[in-house]
Amino acid sequence: MDRVDALRELAFEEKGFGAFLVGNEKNLLYLTGTPGAFCLLIPRKGESTVYAYGVNYEQTKAEARGFKVELLKAGEKLTERLAPMFKAFKIEKLVIDTLSYDYYRLLTKGLRGNARLKVEGGLIWKLRKVKDEKELQLMRKAGKITSVGMQTAYKTIKPGVTEIAVAAEIEYAMRKEGGWGTGFDTIVASGIRSAYPHGGCANRKIGKGDLVVVDIGAIYEHYCSDMTRTMVAGNPSERQERMYETVNTAQEKAYQAIKAKAKAKDIDQVARKTIQDAGYVPYDHGLGHGVGLEIHEPPKLSATSKDRLVAGNVVTNEPGIYIPNFGGIRIEDTVLVQEGKAEKLTKGPYTLEAEE
Amino acid sequence: MDRVDALRELAFEEKGFGAFLVGNEKNLLYLTGTPGAFCLLIPRKGESTVYAYGVNYEQTKAEARGFKVELLKAGEKLTERLAPMFKAFKIEKLVIDTLSYDYYRLLTKGLRGNARLKVEGGLIWKLRKVKDEKELQLMRKAGKITSVGMQTAYKTIKPGVTEIAVAAEIEYAMRKEGGWGTGFDTIVASGIRSAYPHGGCANRKIGKGDLVVVDIGAIYEHYCSDMTRTMVAGNPSERQERMYETVNTAQEKAYQAIKAKAKAKDIDQVARKTIQDAGYVPYDHGLGHGVGLEIHEPPKLSATSKDRLVAGNVVTNEPGIYIPNFGGIRIEDTVLVQEGKAEKLTKGPYTLEAEE
Repeated sequence: MDRVDALRELAFEEKGFGAFLVGNEKNLLYLTGTPGAFCLLIPRKGESTVYAYGVNYEQTKAEARGFKVELLKAGEKLTERLAPMFKAFKIEKLVIDTLSYDYYRLLTKGLRGNARLKVEGGLIWKLRKVKDEKELQLMRKAGKITSVGMQTAYKTIKPGVTEIAVAAEIEYAMRKEGGWGTGFDTIVASGIRSAYPHGGCANRKIGKGDLVVVDIGAIYEHYCSDMTRTMVAGNPSERQERMYETVNTAQEKAYQAIKAKAKAKDIDQVARKTIQDAGYVPYDHGLGHGVGLEIHEPPKLSATSKDRLVAGNVVTNEPGIYIPNFGGIRIEDTVLVQEGKAEKLTKGPYTLEAEE
Repeated sequence: MDRVDALRELAFEEKGFGAFLVGNEKNLLYLTGTPGAFCLLIPRKGESTVYAYGVNYEQTKAEARGFKVELLKAGEKLTERLAPMFKAFKIEKLVIDTLSYDYYRLLTKGLRGNARLKVEGGLIWKLRKVKDEKELQLMRKAGKITSVGMQTAYKTIKPGVTEIAVAAEIEYAMRKEGGWGTGFDTIVASGIRSAYPHGGCANRKIGKGDLVVVDIGAIYEHYCSDMTRTMVAGNPSERQERMYETVNTAQEKAYQAIKAKAKAKDIDQVARKTIQDAGYVPYDHGLGHGVGLEIHEPPKLSATSKDRLVAGNVVTNEPGIYIPNFGGIRIEDTVLVQEGKAEKLTKGPYTLEAEE
């Protein structure tokens, strides 16, 4: 309920909206604490109401504590329920957090004459991108579980093992640590596919001397984590080692620069310049992104980002070098932004060498 | 390219559109064969072009065979690239498969004066919901892997084991069979949480005599599968057995009714009525849904569905009974609709008893 109160403050006191309708599933989870609500209506005056379809009604009723929970019947349109209420409460300006074009058309049609519609996704992000202590506990745990997964990768990767077999061991180890699953498809990309930042994970046998990019993330109680290490199956070549040292230095320098009040694009630039100065083409993605209930959240750390970091942001730091038809190297940690030095939520060795 | 040709036929010959812009990631995967494209422009005349940002450009170029692949620069707006082309080709009516409200506003602004915009998601679904032989091979494999996961559930579930520990073994077994991951979060919901259709999976120890709903799905080469069994840890009670027999009969009767030309709502009714006639409140979800590149696709098997099945649809058949504060039972298979009897893509025992 604290989170709803914070949103009320932003939406009603600062912005003067008439009512806020939350429809994005992660926003609903953030505000109600349960994953099955269909939407949440927060009126300026009166009680906040969670609506749920029958399939999730009992669970929502049991878990959305402090909210009024109402049942939507199968096939029932939400607008049919809302329109009369809007009329009665004289709600003129309805703000909604997210909307598909089709749903926009449906809503404006359904509410015709009763309320104007405005889409405003930024308000809840303003809250969600600064993690509270409860969230940080869960994210630290997610980071720990992910780090165990990465230890497993170092132990498992050998010439002749398939990428999928490595993924099997990583995910199993993370589950054994209490993980709730993975926030994205596990990447174990070897050989020339390591040069694809989203190289996936296939039935390919890892070759001797291959670069292997391992990008993984466990979920714990709905919170994500994100971590990458790159290793060589066998002995690294000089070329691989030089690439690795460059990425490693870029990542460490960026880590030192991550603190409250820093401009996100300046941090990206620290890593990017380190790679360029060493004579490589830098990564063609951003240096990092926020992490939380979703694997990709604001703020964005990139060359074009307008974000400025604040304490409580949790972001990734993941520079890389990708050489087509040769291979790629990326090193990534999830870190908590603080006034001073950032706290690493993922921990693992900074080495190119898999264990023998 | 056959799929693009089929779409051309629908979009240009039948509907008279000027160009089709594909932006949904699964539609892009379906049409281009690679997961990293940002969009695909199919003009009435001339070459189809795939656009990709730098992070995915090399992979897209290597994998989107037969397409022209163009690079979008970081921060570059797609509309800036498209608007002049639309002017040159005199494209008046641009059709797009999917759209957020924000993107709709961006596109209409960017294209102002050059093309009218229409959202039409149904055309590609018309293709995607009828699986071709290549897709069915992958879906059969996904079903096999999922069935192995379910065997593991039967072996693992015992009083005292946590839900997450069961999930760990299931997912590990599916990876060992070559699975690419899971299409949705593995559900192992025990005790009274088994009465929540989306009960999740937590650190809870399974109790003696608990109902345990296990709802799982492996992915193989991007294709999903979906399967549920319910078992008891220990000896089932008479009440549990009677519930189980009812759901089992409902599922079997629905399976017999699944064939080409059948109305989806009639099949739902077969299962629903069986459960009602036995004196239970039937499931408050649909009987089933299409499965393919996504875990929830058309057609929908529900009381309000207007769909009629055709050969090549792949759908789930998943009736259930959920009794609040007692527990739930659901049985689900993924099946291929044919002219005659449907083919089961998931196979497993129909029993309430976990192995001792």
